[in-house]
Amino acid sequence: MLVFGTHRRSIEPHPDGKSVVVIDQTRLPHACELVRLGTLEDVAGAIRTMVVRGAPLIGVTAAYGMAIAKHAGIAIDAAYETLLATRPTAVNLRWALDRMRKSPTFAEANAIAEEDVAMCKAIGEHGVKLFPKKEIVNVLTHCNAGWLACVDWGTALSAIYRAHDSGTRVHVWVSETRPRNQGAQLTAWELGAHGIPHTIVADNACGHLIARGKVDLCIVGADRVTARGDVANKIGTYLKALACRESGVPFHVAFPSSTIDFALERGEDIPIEERSPDEVTTIGGVRIAPEKSVAFNPGFDVTPARFVTGFITERGTCAPDALRTLHA
Amino acid sequence: MLVFGTHRRSIEPHPDGKSVVVIDQTRLPHACELVRLGTLEDVAGAIRTMVVRGAPLIGVTAAYGMAIAKHAGIAIDAAYETLLATRPTAVNLRWALDRMRKSPTFAEANAIAEEDVAMCKAIGEHGVKLFPKKEIVNVLTHCNAGWLACVDWGTALSAIYRAHDSGTRVHVWVSETRPRNQGAQLTAWELGAHGIPHTIVADNACGHLIARGKVDLCIVGADRVTARGDVANKIGTYLKALACRESGVPFHVAFPSSTIDFALERGEDIPIEERSPDEVTTIGGVRIAPEKSVAFNPGFDVTPARFVTGFITERGTCAPDALRTLHA
Repeated sequence: MLVFGTHRRSIEPHPDGKSVVVIDQTRLPHACELVRLGTLEDVAGAIRTMVVRGAPLIGVTAAYGMAIAKHAGIAIDAAYETLLATRPTAVNLRWALDRMRKSPTFAEANAIAEEDVAMCKAIGEHGVKLFPKKEIVNVLTHCNAGWLACVDWGTALSAIYRAHDSGTRVHVWVSETRPRNQGAQLTAWELGAHGIPHTIVADNACGHLIARGKVDLCIVGADRVTARGDVANKIGTYLKALACRESGVPFHVAFPSSTIDFALERGEDIPIEERSPDEVTTIGGVRIAPEKSVAFNPGFDVTPARFVTGFITERGTCAPDALRTLHA
Repeated sequence: MLVFGTHRRSIEPHPDGKSVVVIDQTRLPHACELVRLGTLEDVAGAIRTMVVRGAPLIGVTAAYGMAIAKHAGIAIDAAYETLLATRPTAVNLRWALDRMRKSPTFAEANAIAEEDVAMCKAIGEHGVKLFPKKEIVNVLTHCNAGWLACVDWGTALSAIYRAHDSGTRVHVWVSETRPRNQGAQLTAWELGAHGIPHTIVADNACGHLIARGKVDLCIVGADRVTARGDVANKIGTYLKALACRESGVPFHVAFPSSTIDFALERGEDIPIEERSPDEVTTIGGVRIAPEKSVAFNPGFDVTPARFVTGFITERGTCAPDALRTLHA
């Protein structure tokens, strides 16, 4: 999408044909710095430290990692295990690695990236049909499920870009998304850079906004969706789903079909990554909590399918119980 | 309660008989600094800038403010208006000011403070009976409704101190409470100083904890409770109530009866303070959001009475529909 007038993607192959260039997302919104990843360890480190993040982008970056490893003569099984171990929750990672194991080339990684762009574009085309006809449509989103989480367009934000670009007036409520603030730091940045009106709120404020009629619909992304439609997504998603159901506000989940894990039925069986307590007790390296207090930091929660109004994938939109049919 | 072995209150009359000493709560948890308030403007400023905060403590501090103003020869009606304008949501403020207008003396302010201590102690005695008989009781709380929000004991935390002091093993989940982090900065500090095991979590994590059976009961405070039992409390309270109801976890609200506003029936009619957007977009003076992004910062939300399992006041515990009877 646009970064103050210039089109950008979150990841692009380097002209040298043996590395990729990504935006260092840990530096946003203060600086938009490009980083070149030229080794397997560069790629694994970038995923682990969240220089790149977002389920689709993790998959695409890991795909390039497989090609980079192959090019460097590293055993492909070893590269697979190294990359698979970087993050445990998103299923796109395994999906991309499985595909690359069969064909660990830059051409294949490029193909995965282009397919991601096409899928995200299609998600936006389907998703925008769910917007109500109003003078201004107020959309709530959580974390970052925009082009920074993918290659271009995004998942949850794709429909917002599509609506805005076609002349619908959209205003986005951006939930801060503690503890890593991806809403305030990434979503607000990309919406602002594209020129879309938005307002940041504390995660705590979302129930109030929904109850007071300030939200027309909520759209979030997903890190893994089970066969029956339970959704693992950024911690805090479940609370928004509860509030939407209570107030009759539509709650939609947008993702490419590679996010669906048909091997799992129950959301309770999705492994939930526990991240460093430091993400909670410190902000920007400065400790906010008492020295001796401990913290617990689950990265994701599970929203049961019954709270979801509809799913949006590249194939279209559907109710939770039709997910299997749409992707048969 | 104890601060590493020494008993402390959040506010104490100065021996000079014409000022009070408070803990500067904006400096916690990094430093426990005492501040002397000797003028009406000292008192109003301390409330406005949240050097003191918490509905009961705001009331008590304002009570001393009336005595200080009277002592300085300031017209009592002017002092009343100045203090009433400091914070709009808590009803204890008006309650204390109305009482002091009739008798603006230090003795009356001291009496209000001592009554607050007695009420909080009674709240703990009633509340602890709601704890399940378990090896370890896991309690979730939000914001700070401890002795720092009152004079001693606290409201929501009073039952926790009572349980701990009488030998029950209690572990407290402390929600960070963005945007001002009163959970991570104040509740964690006072629990730690008293020796109570606790774990800080991002506000976003509370739904996950509740859904996964990690919470036995939730206790929060209140800034204003309507006649029918709707509860205005720190922004984010409503989301916890939703999650508790969904998982069948008891959700209790603890407050002195001065928090009840019998003049209001509907929670929607409680004025909700909108605080500075800077509290959301900056942390410790450092901007975390993009320069051009705006924020919206409501300080409180309303939890409808139907989500409340029980109320705890100095008079006992009751179901929401019995609030009027208990306080008749």
